[in-house]
Amino acid sequence: MVGMGRIGKIHFKNIQHQLAGAEIVAVADLRYDTALKEIYNGILFSENPDEVITLPEVDAILICTPTSSHAALIEKGIQSGKHIFCEKPMDLSLEKTTTLSEMAKEAGVKLMLGFNRRFDPDFMQANQSVRDGKIGDVQIVKITSRDPGPPPIEYIKHSGGLFMDMAIHDFDMARHIMGKEVAEVYSRGLNIIDHEIRKAGDIDTALTTLVFEDGTYAVIDNSRKAAYGYDQRLEIFGDKGMIKVGNNLHNQNVLFNQDGIHHALPLDFFMDRYAKSYLKEMELFIDALVNDKEMPAGGEDGLKATQIAYAAKMSVETGRPVKLSEVMINSHHAMEKTSD
Amino acid sequence: MVGMGRIGKIHFKNIQHQLAGAEIVAVADLRYDTALKEIYNGILFSENPDEVITLPEVDAILICTPTSSHAALIEKGIQSGKHIFCEKPMDLSLEKTTTLSEMAKEAGVKLMLGFNRRFDPDFMQANQSVRDGKIGDVQIVKITSRDPGPPPIEYIKHSGGLFMDMAIHDFDMARHIMGKEVAEVYSRGLNIIDHEIRKAGDIDTALTTLVFEDGTYAVIDNSRKAAYGYDQRLEIFGDKGMIKVGNNLHNQNVLFNQDGIHHALPLDFFMDRYAKSYLKEMELFIDALVNDKEMPAGGEDGLKATQIAYAAKMSVETGRPVKLSEVMINSHHAMEKTSD
Amino acid sequence: MVGMGRIGKIHFKNIQHQLAGAEIVAVADLRYDTALKEIYNGILFSENPDEVITLPEVDAILICTPTSSHAALIEKGIQSGKHIFCEKPMDLSLEKTTTLSEMAKEAGVKLMLGFNRRFDPDFMQANQSVRDGKIGDVQIVKITSRDPGPPPIEYIKHSGGLFMDMAIHDFDMARHIMGKEVAEVYSRGLNIIDHEIRKAGDIDTALTTLVFEDGTYAVIDNSRKAAYGYDQRLEIFGDKGMIKVGNNLHNQNVLFNQDGIHHALPLDFFMDRYAKSYLKEMELFIDALVNDKEMPAGGEDGLKATQIAYAAKMSVETGRPVKLSEVMINSHHAMEKTSD
Amino acid sequence: MVGMGRIGKIHFKNIQHQLAGAEIVAVADLRYDTALKEIYNGILFSENPDEVITLPEVDAILICTPTSSHAALIEKGIQSGKHIFCEKPMDLSLEKTTTLSEMAKEAGVKLMLGFNRRFDPDFMQANQSVRDGKIGDVQIVKITSRDPGPPPIEYIKHSGGLFMDMAIHDFDMARHIMGKEVAEVYSRGLNIIDHEIRKAGDIDTALTTLVFEDGTYAVIDNSRKAAYGYDQRLEIFGDKGMIKVGNNLHNQNVLFNQDGIHHALPLDFFMDRYAKSYLKEMELFIDALVNDKEMPAGGEDGLKATQIAYAAKMSVETGRPVKLSEVMINSHHAMEKTSD
Repeated sequence: MVGMGRIGKIHFKNIQHQLAGAEIVAVADLRYDTALKEIYNGILFSENPDEVITLPEVDAILICTPTSSHAALIEKGIQSGKHIFCEKPMDLSLEKTTTLSEMAKEAGVKLMLGFNRRFDPDFMQANQSVRDGKIGDVQIVKITSRDPGPPPIEYIKHSGGLFMDMAIHDFDMARHIMGKEVAEVYSRGLNIIDHEIRKAGDIDTALTTLVFEDGTYAVIDNSRKAAYGYDQRLEIFGDKGMIKVGNNLHNQNVLFNQDGIHHALPLDFFMDRYAKSYLKEMELFIDALVNDKEMPAGGEDGLKATQIAYAAKMSVETGRPVKLSEVMINSHHAMEKTSD
Repeated sequence: MVGMGRIGKIHFKNIQHQLAGAEIVAVADLRYDTALKEIYNGILFSENPDEVITLPEVDAILICTPTSSHAALIEKGIQSGKHIFCEKPMDLSLEKTTTLSEMAKEAGVKLMLGFNRRFDPDFMQANQSVRDGKIGDVQIVKITSRDPGPPPIEYIKHSGGLFMDMAIHDFDMARHIMGKEVAEVYSRGLNIIDHEIRKAGDIDTALTTLVFEDGTYAVIDNSRKAAYGYDQRLEIFGDKGMIKVGNNLHNQNVLFNQDGIHHALPLDFFMDRYAKSYLKEMELFIDALVNDKEMPAGGEDGLKATQIAYAAKMSVETGRPVKLSEVMINSHHAMEKTSD
Repeated sequence: MVGMGRIGKIHFKNIQHQLAGAEIVAVADLRYDTALKEIYNGILFSENPDEVITLPEVDAILICTPTSSHAALIEKGIQSGKHIFCEKPMDLSLEKTTTLSEMAKEAGVKLMLGFNRRFDPDFMQANQSVRDGKIGDVQIVKITSRDPGPPPIEYIKHSGGLFMDMAIHDFDMARHIMGKEVAEVYSRGLNIIDHEIRKAGDIDTALTTLVFEDGTYAVIDNSRKAAYGYDQRLEIFGDKGMIKVGNNLHNQNVLFNQDGIHHALPLDFFMDRYAKSYLKEMELFIDALVNDKEMPAGGEDGLKATQIAYAAKMSVETGRPVKLSEVMINSHHAMEKTSD
Repeated sequence: MVGMGRIGKIHFKNIQHQLAGAEIVAVADLRYDTALKEIYNGILFSENPDEVITLPEVDAILICTPTSSHAALIEKGIQSGKHIFCEKPMDLSLEKTTTLSEMAKEAGVKLMLGFNRRFDPDFMQANQSVRDGKIGDVQIVKITSRDPGPPPIEYIKHSGGLFMDMAIHDFDMARHIMGKEVAEVYSRGLNIIDHEIRKAGDIDTALTTLVFEDGTYAVIDNSRKAAYGYDQRLEIFGDKGMIKVGNNLHNQNVLFNQDGIHHALPLDFFMDRYAKSYLKEMELFIDALVNDKEMPAGGEDGLKATQIAYAAKMSVETGRPVKLSEVMINSHHAMEKTSD
């Protein structure tokens, strides 16, 4: 493991205490709880990522550091012949992302991206129902994805923007459910929540239409702030029916009084809302390693979602639909360029 | 028609403007809107019920007067050979009720009681689903029946009490859904809403267990006041599943804000909540007349519900379960007695 | 009244039996039920619309004929100085629509368009909640509007197409809720339900983004066929919360069995689903006449919705967002042209 | 820990990996997974409960064995001065239960009973809302408690019967929410699910009215088999409103198709449904030990629930309401008797 921040700790606990088939050999971070070292005294706690990545007994690495260091760590992993799990995105640069995806493929290294929402039990069930033909041919996917509040402005500044940081999960989900590739993107962006976000050069609200190769489409509605909390919904409409995935509420209680009938709010912190998806994605990562399966969300998926994010941004800037081919970069060209 | 109060007007409008197969020939009441007389100038508006009931062109009478006059009007109707629709109950006295039920049967006069809830579209659908075997053999029926607030204390004083006035609808519903007869009744009564109701000798809250002939049971929970409005729910549990009938809300809107997720309250006035049931019961009354069918809620049903109400009251007073046989009155005996 | 088809009969019944303040003096249609003539023997039943429209005792006319005759009847009404209620749209031609809207305004004739959904109790309540500030500033309106099945192909051929015939209600709703004007329209259209519709030159599925003057937007998703019935939903998201308007289901019953928890389908016929909205719109039309108020959905609203429908169609054809200014027609110019 | 069966393993994992403040020193069971011994090599794995209970470094014991051994282990714990967590019930005998409750109190040993449902987050929230006055004075508590299917008949035979084994949780919940003592119990029992259960001398379906000291009441409806799974619902009605606690469904997905609108079934295994309650009860047990607080569900609570179960059984047998005083046993008398 490289990186033991908020998300790193989740993966650490899941692997050590909830999942079979893998164990943590070494961890690299700059600081540790001393308690941790004592409890897990069989694990190497290092401050040097390279030391951890190159350990011979390490089969695979988990990259849970800030985005800016992802690319270098992925490259190091590939060079060391280790399989890789990396939190999304691989890199803010499309060229770099293209290169890394290509490098991993050529090196035969398994690469999984942390598109955890794919592995949420509700969304998995919805996807399975689609695959099982429960709603026939899918005609439209609708995603509502709103945060309970914007992250700190310093985070925003280095996030790559709303599309790259936040909507990228939804772009991946739309492709995942549709099982097709996006051909064109039309986005509208707004800055109506926080003036600081505008000053940081980002938008805080967006509406995106994804047009797939066969003309069917998805629509994604993003906001950095929903007054009622974390709003994560999905609707899939097909010629035989519709599947709706609702929010996970704090509790199942309903209060009836003279003012109305009142339900609890949605779970408002992503680590609560998606606790099960983090566990499941790690289970599937380990399963793909142990049983030599294809990764359920690989480098190509990371690249595609990044391309869509680039196209969305360009669409907001130009006011017109943008074809995905407009932002795609020839991967060999990219490799030459980024290897300079 | 005899009686053009709140409920009479509903039936009047339904027959004249919504339903085919019947027309109103004459109406008896003590007072009329002059407007009414002008609009419906083909109708006889009388102040004398007897004049209306005995009119040769009248085939059937609707009794929509206060309870205290029901018995005499039913008797008059039977003697005149008219079919009868009467708002529940026939009479507050069990003896009288027994007699009237028997008299109608012997005279071959069709008699329908205004157990309108049976004819609410939701409850009808629930009953049909039971009849269709959707939930297998019914094991328990659960009814929640709460008013939005107590009626005027003057009304309470002449109402016959909570069981006779309010729960009687639920007793009828339980029998109707179960399709069996009640053998035993256990009720608890409370006086916790309004001190005036206690002074009037009535309870305002009750919980009743109805045990049917085969040992299965129903439970009914009544209150004169629910802070959130008119609460009318039904659950039917069988060996293959359960049917729940929920409340009809004011609207389908949901408000999400920082305090929660808020739905509208239930329809809080019985004439709104049961508007469709009044229409349907009249449609079925006319249908039974025109096509010579059995009445869907007849004198026998009125009598049974009244017996249960008597047993419930006795149970509260004695603190023990009361067998229905304890309150039943030999009908011939009753006829002799009430004919004195 | 001109036109006594399906929708005409609804208005007729509502005015005669449910509403005060107006009465029907004369009706024009080509055929009548003889029964109707007998029951309403005070009403003139004519086969000549002009005879009805020009009657001196007529204050206002209701136009409930097929679309192709709307324009001529509206003109006749304006010339006769009668106030007008007309089912949407005024005309399939944008020029004609522009002219009619202008003519009515100049003649001081009150003109109301049958955008009945505005007057559905649920949508009215939602709109009122927005006006009351319950969700703060509106950031996005989302409409799902799907029919239970396509109308007959002959109807489609003369309908003006999906946007003009069906989505026009949603365009009006979006403007109504937003309380702002649309500046730009981006639509995607598909033909995936019925091959006959494609042959008739129409689409059967569409996704539309409406961008308002201030950059906020609405998204509307239309389909001619939802397997589960008539899907009419609205979401309004603001900085203080969200309002969702759900479907009206056939009943409130829920069946629990080993396969799941099952609710009834939405009301699947528009005349059931919107029964109350037809009543309310007529009540408001009469109220505006009697109390000399502004019409709640006037000629200008009809024109705006038609302009949006034109822009949506152009967007599908060109594959790009279309500014509303691109389809607007100078009204005086239009009047000259259509008066030729 | 004594007993490492299904429930024991849950507590073990929760203490070792999820909770702070306690650690497991020793475990007694007859058989172990060898894997377990290897992983937790600091823990004493014994086959002798006494060895474990009397260890000086043990502060508290967890009793997770079958019911028949509870009493002896509790006694041993009390004699050894250890605090005790014991799965419900303490014993099938009311005398023994009375004695144990008294013994623990006199010895100053903290004793907690595993009434885990009290600690389910939804029920805790409901209880908190009642305590916060959200619904005013509670007038009625309604509990629906149905298993997805009967346990093995061998289990039933030694379970103490439906009231002692299953409804006891609901009796505790009713007391817990009401915050008052039960004065009288009226139960109806049925045998309509499984003939084998009848042969084993038990019922499989029951309806119970609990009358509290002040006349208010609760109603509990139990079944050993609900076709749609594990049905665990609670309604609390007060003079200012109502709280409903619904089931936890498998997922939040809804499928709409031509047959209806379909939701997932409730979680159907008690260890899934109440996973969080097991964690919470252990957290509160540890907290009460570490911070010297009163146990949240103590010996007195265990005794009261057992008394109610006895009264319920007697009510079914006699067909009449049974006062709790009829089944209460003088504790000193009981101690003398059970110490023979």
